Amino acid sequence: MRILPTVNPTVECISDPAAMQQRAEAVRRQGRRIAVVPTMGALHEGHCSLIRLARTRSDLVITTIFVNPSQFGEGEDFDRYPRDLGRDTVLAQKAGTDIVFVPSREGMYPGGFVTAVDVEKITGVLEGAIRPGHFRGVTTVVAKLFNITRPDLAVFGQKDAQQVAVIRRMVQDLNFGVEIVVAPIVREADGLAMSSRNAYLTPVQRAEAPVLYRSLRSAAALVLAGERDPEAIRRSMIHQISRASSGSVQYVSLADEGNLEEFRVLPGGARVLISLAVKFGSTRLIDNCVLDVPS
Amino acid sequence: MRILPTVNPTVECISDPAAMQQRAEAVRRQGRRIAVVPTMGALHEGHCSLIRLARTRSDLVITTIFVNPSQFGEGEDFDRYPRDLGRDTVLAQKAGTDIVFVPSREGMYPGGFVTAVDVEKITGVLEGAIRPGHFRGVTTVVAKLFNITRPDLAVFGQKDAQQVAVIRRMVQDLNFGVEIVVAPIVREADGLAMSSRNAYLTPVQRAEAPVLYRSLRSAAALVLAGERDPEAIRRSMIHQISRASSGSVQYVSLADEGNLEEFRVLPGGARVLISLAVKFGSTRLIDNCVLDVPS
Repeated sequence: MRILPTVNPTVECISDPAAMQQRAEAVRRQGRRIAVVPTMGALHEGHCSLIRLARTRSDLVITTIFVNPSQFGEGEDFDRYPRDLGRDTVLAQKAGTDIVFVPSREGMYPGGFVTAVDVEKITGVLEGAIRPGHFRGVTTVVAKLFNITRPDLAVFGQKDAQQVAVIRRMVQDLNFGVEIVVAPIVREADGLAMSSRNAYLTPVQRAEAPVLYRSLRSAAALVLAGERDPEAIRRSMIHQISRASSGSVQYVSLADEGNLEEFRVLPGGARVLISLAVKFGSTRLIDNCVLDVPS
Repeated sequence: MRILPTVNPTVECISDPAAMQQRAEAVRRQGRRIAVVPTMGALHEGHCSLIRLARTRSDLVITTIFVNPSQFGEGEDFDRYPRDLGRDTVLAQKAGTDIVFVPSREGMYPGGFVTAVDVEKITGVLEGAIRPGHFRGVTTVVAKLFNITRPDLAVFGQKDAQQVAVIRRMVQDLNFGVEIVVAPIVREADGLAMSSRNAYLTPVQRAEAPVLYRSLRSAAALVLAGERDPEAIRRSMIHQISRASSGSVQYVSLADEGNLEEFRVLPGGARVLISLAVKFGSTRLIDNCVLDVPS
């Protein structure tokens, strides 16, 4: 019998939470560092950059793929959210994943499930104001995923800036002992932030959408030029977006990066998170940048 | 230099959550089993029995002592709850504790704390109905303590039967991977369940209080004699307590041990949790027993 060398070993796929937890626990007891990258699948270059970053910081990379129903609201796109596990698995592996954790809905939320993790205050603004219950779904599933995969660190994308702030808060408040690593936004050549939801855009909407990034760059330029009035910057961004697209602006925010409180004046030395949500038809796009206000 | 044998080594005391977590993590990476016994101090023989049980099931026993403000309601006894850390530490050590974890209030709830763990449904009845917010405080602090002490198992007392059901639910729903071990109620010679709150009783109330246990035994006798009507049993218990004491009955419950739903008829083969809360002046006492209904 000849044993062929495995050139492209198939990635380890685990769907049972208890099996995943046992596996992670065993790795941890060997003193090896675990990184987890929680995703909802439909992987693009943005996700792959998270996985590659996780790879450089750990001995074992677990990518989780779970379209979490509890973070979608009524009338949101849970049913049509893109799913392609075969493709995702290959991309995850190529980017450096050791284990893909793909639980079932019933595996994550069996009958009788009644528990939630709630972060207050910073979940009531921005995305949280428009998508009630969204962050409760996110923090609950992330708490579960942390307990199941026992990570030393977890990598999230800056694209979901509020999610990062909320999860940091949860980790600190509940003493998870997981380091939160944030990877920069990956953009298409024309500046549009990568998102699984970009696939919903019509060709015309897709051509218009890069104005979101251009408006963030304009805002940054205004701040660097000395503008300290958030309202003036917000107006200018909305004007730019409205002029160049059919998008309907849901919010433009200039807030403290940590507690997400809106600035009334931009103080020198502050870190400001400039973020926005714009709807193109039924497709919501978000984008943001973080800026140090010159003193 | 002579090294004297340490006959009574002082127990290891840790107050910083991060230091405790680091210590627990190191122990866990050695492959040693950790048991945690969460308490609010004011230790009595009931707590000591939990610690002794933890000792037999693990390599390292951590007893936590923290009078958790968030599980006390308005007008409850947070301020007058008995505190004696010196005595508690000695008792915890004698019972087999390796590490006493005694965080400060600020260490557990630093400024900006906004997160909670919520178990729904089974927290709305019995103790939860009378003490709104109590279990939210319990689950949040226990989630924190689990993350800080990284236990393989945790020991709780059957005395707080609903707390056991709520924590089991939380552990299962959030995949904590912690085994919940329940220790039987420890009673005084006259049957009164041990409780730190017994110290509040006047001599007359103290003499009356054992009727709670007698009423539970009477209820069990009725069930064993064939009574299947919870209402009849409840009436009989209330009558017995009222006749023999000044206590004011807050509830008498005959419920499913797991989901805490009240039985309308006691079905053969079911496990019924008979529980009660009685107020003696401003002091609330609770007690319970679990019974297998004969088929």
